Amino acid sequence: MMTRSELCAFLRAHDTYVILTHRRPDGDTIGCAAALCMGLRQMGKRAAVLQNRQFTPRFAPYLDGLVCAEVPEAATLVSVDIASEGLLSFDAEPYLPRIALAVDHHGSNSLPLENKLVEADKAACGEIIYEILAELGVHITKPIAEALYVAISTDTGCFKYSNTSANTFRVAARLVEAGADVFPINKLFFDTKSFARLKLEARLVDNMEFFAGGRVAICCLPNAWLEELQLTEDDVDAISGFARAIEGVQIGVMIREVENGLGKLSVRTGPEYSASDICQALGGGGHAAAAGASVPGGITGARRAILAVLSERGIVPER
Amino acid sequence: MMTRSELCAFLRAHDTYVILTHRRPDGDTIGCAAALCMGLRQMGKRAAVLQNRQFTPRFAPYLDGLVCAEVPEAATLVSVDIASEGLLSFDAEPYLPRIALAVDHHGSNSLPLENKLVEADKAACGEIIYEILAELGVHITKPIAEALYVAISTDTGCFKYSNTSANTFRVAARLVEAGADVFPINKLFFDTKSFARLKLEARLVDNMEFFAGGRVAICCLPNAWLEELQLTEDDVDAISGFARAIEGVQIGVMIREVENGLGKLSVRTGPEYSASDICQALGGGGHAAAAGASVPGGITGARRAILAVLSERGIVPER
Repeated sequence: MMTRSELCAFLRAHDTYVILTHRRPDGDTIGCAAALCMGLRQMGKRAAVLQNRQFTPRFAPYLDGLVCAEVPEAATLVSVDIASEGLLSFDAEPYLPRIALAVDHHGSNSLPLENKLVEADKAACGEIIYEILAELGVHITKPIAEALYVAISTDTGCFKYSNTSANTFRVAARLVEAGADVFPINKLFFDTKSFARLKLEARLVDNMEFFAGGRVAICCLPNAWLEELQLTEDDVDAISGFARAIEGVQIGVMIREVENGLGKLSVRTGPEYSASDICQALGGGGHAAAAGASVPGGITGARRAILAVLSERGIVPER
Repeated sequence: MMTRSELCAFLRAHDTYVILTHRRPDGDTIGCAAALCMGLRQMGKRAAVLQNRQFTPRFAPYLDGLVCAEVPEAATLVSVDIASEGLLSFDAEPYLPRIALAVDHHGSNSLPLENKLVEADKAACGEIIYEILAELGVHITKPIAEALYVAISTDTGCFKYSNTSANTFRVAARLVEAGADVFPINKLFFDTKSFARLKLEARLVDNMEFFAGGRVAICCLPNAWLEELQLTEDDVDAISGFARAIEGVQIGVMIREVENGLGKLSVRTGPEYSASDICQALGGGGHAAAAGASVPGGITGARRAILAVLSERGIVPER
């Protein structure tokens, strides 16, 4: 582990950087990589973000002119927002032994290196990169501010999730002061849905089952719908929380088909119930408010299994 | 007009306050009234929020123990977030001549009194009340912080709307530091929809029409659906923006039936088009990104009229 000033000293000491992002890259890993890259270049360093074949189109504007396809011999490799080896992007995987520095906000960070700065109290890795750039004396330009705003806003659901802290808001204030034009970012990431997603939601609504006077809601999403509605991975993003977001629902369940004929249960609960307890009874686990389990018998098996657990506990009437 | 310190001197100088809220009260007027009331009580004043028959259940926790049904003879009346006489709540209307002080963030504030503090650069009136309480030396307790957070978050769509500024984020940071538990508030106001609302959205999706390769989308909401799906006013909140929030849609139109057989068009546009121009051609008006017009012939007439305007302008092909 390093302190923030040790990390800054390290960054000042080297000349050529390649920054690595995580698998299924999100706004936080991409925004951090872009902002750090631009900051290092401003300091007169050579810097680039390693290509990640999973970068999606909506992040392209933030990566424009920053991406490299290969890692120069002399480069110092930095990972941002990557919690473990298994989460390295497919393009970054071969470089694991060469990673020299890691910046992350996952308390569980297990990357096998000494030079790590992990601040688990931060909602987004972007909050840490902001502080690092400030300490390095980098001028927070509009593009840097917008990349960091993408990092912070997407990792907090636009300041809506429980990880949002006073520091998150404070950094957001400074990014707006630095010139970040946040409204178009908010519109794109938090106020736009594809029509395919809306068709999926409509179908989930039409097929939703309620129990216990509306306190329990169960949705099933067969794989056939994915093809039929031509849904992309972006379209099904965060769909697991769909049922729990309905007024009055304290236990929201989403069931999907996964490999080997298993049914995958995603359970979201309000403060009176424990998703983790419920899923443990089915061989799964997770957090108090969000947990999962995979059970045999596909969707039908999973639906039967979760209803059995809920009725054993007296949450839904015996059937 | 008053300065902030003149307003604070005024508040220190009197002893009994009744605070007025606006018609169809929202989180900003209610949060401001509750926070100011608690702050004045902390200063040893008598203070209450005047009953408003339109208060809705989800704001009840913030008003608990603060509401009065009558205005004492000696009371000084303060309005918060009320931009004009016509917006006074039905319960506050008779007291217009007695309003002694107004705090607001609407630049257009037309209340007929001298003692006004209007800061039009603020996204929410709650930002102004925060500064006033701080200047008065009020300790920002958890309940005060949460009332102000409701004000600020609801008026900015959880920091998503274009009015959100660096100051908005800065005040939010201070409210979290003061102990506001913001996650349950965010969950209730920004991550919960009624099942009736979802059924309405499903129906709008099933009946949506697209034109110009998906750049134009038109939705119609017949009044019969309101009854059939048992929709409340809360359920149709902000439904006008539904079509524009679909990926690729640059002109989103919602048509509703209103009195006298008119069809009410609500038009929302992206930066390339002007909703205001489009609606002016139909005798309506509004802002560049959001405007409206009412035309004869109900839903059918309104649909025909908007398509005629869009085809005259070459936005949709001639029909």
